[in-house]
Amino acid sequence: MVGSLTIVGLGPGEAHWLTPAAQAALDAASDLVGYEPYLDRIPARAGRTKHGSDNRVEIARAEHALRLAAEGRTVAVVSGGDPGVFAMAAAVFEALEAGDPAWRALTITVEPGITAMLAAAAKVGAPLGGDFCAISLSDNLKPWEVVTMRLEAVLAADFVIALYNPISKARPWQLGAALELAVRHRPAETPVIFARAVGRPDENLRVLPLSQAVAAAASADMATLVMIGASSTRLIERPGQAAIVYTPRSVTKSPCATSQGRT
Amino acid sequence: MVGSLTIVGLGPGEAHWLTPAAQAALDAASDLVGYEPYLDRIPARAGRTKHGSDNRVEIARAEHALRLAAEGRTVAVVSGGDPGVFAMAAAVFEALEAGDPAWRALTITVEPGITAMLAAAAKVGAPLGGDFCAISLSDNLKPWEVVTMRLEAVLAADFVIALYNPISKARPWQLGAALELAVRHRPAETPVIFARAVGRPDENLRVLPLSQAVAAAASADMATLVMIGASSTRLIERPGQAAIVYTPRSVTKSPCATSQGRT
Repeated sequence: MVGSLTIVGLGPGEAHWLTPAAQAALDAASDLVGYEPYLDRIPARAGRTKHGSDNRVEIARAEHALRLAAEGRTVAVVSGGDPGVFAMAAAVFEALEAGDPAWRALTITVEPGITAMLAAAAKVGAPLGGDFCAISLSDNLKPWEVVTMRLEAVLAADFVIALYNPISKARPWQLGAALELAVRHRPAETPVIFARAVGRPDENLRVLPLSQAVAAAASADMATLVMIGASSTRLIERPGQAAIVYTPRSVTKSPCATSQGRT
Repeated sequence: MVGSLTIVGLGPGEAHWLTPAAQAALDAASDLVGYEPYLDRIPARAGRTKHGSDNRVEIARAEHALRLAAEGRTVAVVSGGDPGVFAMAAAVFEALEAGDPAWRALTITVEPGITAMLAAAAKVGAPLGGDFCAISLSDNLKPWEVVTMRLEAVLAADFVIALYNPISKARPWQLGAALELAVRHRPAETPVIFARAVGRPDENLRVLPLSQAVAAAASADMATLVMIGASSTRLIERPGQAAIVYTPRSVTKSPCATSQGRT
């Protein structure tokens, strides 16, 4: 008997962002595997077992899920946001690649979800309206020199930048360092968005000019998504309502002296 | 009487990827504004008016929606994928910024959706498992020199690259040029994903090594999302099933000689 494994994106906090396809995958599962706070968002049900784990054991969790599926279970690995964006999908495939060859016979699917940067962007306007990138600031899995090299590249090339995993107790200074790099490339008034716990009751959205963002870095935490605007990202002020943050679709001139021209 | 405007992400083709929040916004609307093929995906209903338009008139469509809202209507502007990613949200805010100051009193919200790169990634595995970026190849709104400058930057910095709007009748050569740039930076076996009409009946997914992707560029169209893997993106072969494409979470060494080190 061969089981199946679906890696399911729950989206950000609110159930109203959970897609019907993701809901169906959860409903069909005999076993739910995931980080405890994500499992807590899914109602208990007779005949469905929850296997919770700590957040820092992705590979062990992925192997556990693959073993359950190999035993014939219908397994859903739950992931916050989108499972393919700094979440469980890559961890499952790393475990698959390195593990029991028999696991490759399993049916494995990924159910996409709303990732944090899309939800955060929607809440403040359209800051991702131009070309953008997503970078994890965690240096658990890559050297910090790679992070800074990538930041320098996309700052020089004027991308909007979404920073995932910006800060943690073990990594207190990285976000400040990233924002200091940004100060060297972007105007002082460039909007920086701190979007914490988007879609949850404790949601907190702040938009600060880059010149003030460095000092605010320490107020971010693991539940915060940080976005650094491009040079064209700007505010639309509104009477009695929060300003809208958006990046126009057009770029009228090259933002970078090293432009190569058409090749 | 002041109306409201919600810019709604329908996600890719399948209704099972439409979030409950997006569905609720469509249900609440008195007026739906959008590109005809997107409106066609929403059932007609008494008391709800559809205002269809051509795909190349985003600003006129946005102004129309804002005028309807200012007349007191409950307007939903529909967008494929996520409205904040190369879609209608930025166009609405451009029209808002340049338009009647009274429009700024409107309640304007954005409902996120599954954007094409997340759906395409989920269908093939987890190619976005590392740092990644999204670039529109359209040079309608930015000079081609900016596109190539940005491509060079993220190729050198080893991002996974999602290319939106890769090709059209008016822009037949840009995708080929982008892939030729990639050939200079990435190994010949780097997986390139051509994901056409993801989630629709005519869905077509192809994974080619970069060395063959340039020749295949002409087979892409406006409904295709193209993803270029990072240097670490790879395949997991499976007996009797399509290979999985994924990017490991870890980077073990700097991929770029110009790395700046910790600042």
